[in-house]
Amino acid sequence: MEFDLSGAMDVLRRTPPVLRALLENLPEPWVRGNEGPETFSPFDVVGHLIDGEETDWMPRARIILARGADPRFEPYDRFRHRLRNAGRTLADLLSEFATLRSANLAQLASWRLGPAELELRGTHPTLGPVTLRELLATWVTHDLGHLAQTARVMAKQYRVSVGPWIAFLPVLTDHERPRS
Amino acid sequence: MEFDLSGAMDVLRRTPPVLRALLENLPEPWVRGNEGPETFSPFDVVGHLIDGEETDWMPRARIILARGADPRFEPYDRFRHRLRNAGRTLADLLSEFATLRSANLAQLASWRLGPAELELRGTHPTLGPVTLRELLATWVTHDLGHLAQTARVMAKQYRVSVGPWIAFLPVLTDHERPRS
Repeated sequence: MEFDLSGAMDVLRRTPPVLRALLENLPEPWVRGNEGPETFSPFDVVGHLIDGEETDWMPRARIILARGADPRFEPYDRFRHRLRNAGRTLADLLSEFATLRSANLAQLASWRLGPAELELRGTHPTLGPVTLRELLATWVTHDLGHLAQTARVMAKQYRVSVGPWIAFLPVLTDHERPRS
Repeated sequence: MEFDLSGAMDVLRRTPPVLRALLENLPEPWVRGNEGPETFSPFDVVGHLIDGEETDWMPRARIILARGADPRFEPYDRFRHRLRNAGRTLADLLSEFATLRSANLAQLASWRLGPAELELRGTHPTLGPVTLRELLATWVTHDLGHLAQTARVMAKQYRVSVGPWIAFLPVLTDHERPRS
């Protein structure tokens, strides 16, 4: 599929309500369960997505659009949320994520980006030159990857309870060592 | 996590609204894109979940609860939905799934299952003896696996658009040959 800004924004707009429908008011074991040491629970995923709103996607888009001499992105801290959200509730994080996402999408729309702007480049600290179009496509894909992760992590909480059916449930066995 | 009937039903109740929030009114390329030949699109996933409501979970639970001499399940047709839903719209399938799920959960609640019923057994055509508890845990896990699949299949539509970021997006590369 070709990248299309309005389609991308349509998907980005859905992530907060999807997470709310999936997670709000769920019992804590579902919200806090993960896939093992150094892996994310659903709570961690929402915190990580908030970090993206505050420090990743729009700040990087602004660096690109500023057309400076050195459009280099700040490195992104994948674990910023751990300290930031200690003691917070999931309900609180879900609200914060929805507010931040909504404001970011309003700002993105206000830029009225056309094909020329989408070709502008920034410099990723490890990947090198990347376009604004690639950044925005990655924002969408990153959301969807973490939605998939959230559902997978929840599924794994019933790994033992399914008994012999584990053989027919690849969601339980395809990521023995999860990468995200 | 220990299986708990009310927690399981809480998750099962969420699947129709989660899919609606993720998919309703999305452009067709997002709804019909898949991961290659013989793989499911988001449209196919909703059709497959409808098949589960009609032919899998509750019919099998009824076979177990009937306590007959031969509590053997019918084999499940993973591709029933293909013919059944040709020409239908996603909006129509989402509504049908929500209606079927709601009715099934109402019936499940009406049975007031206790620990003794959850230990009753049926015979799976290939897995052999399984308990009602395992069947219900599998229902939940199957939903979550297909939610993860739906998000992953959507993510893959931007596989090329993300450019060099593909290296940081395991959702695009962890299932080169998807099993579900």
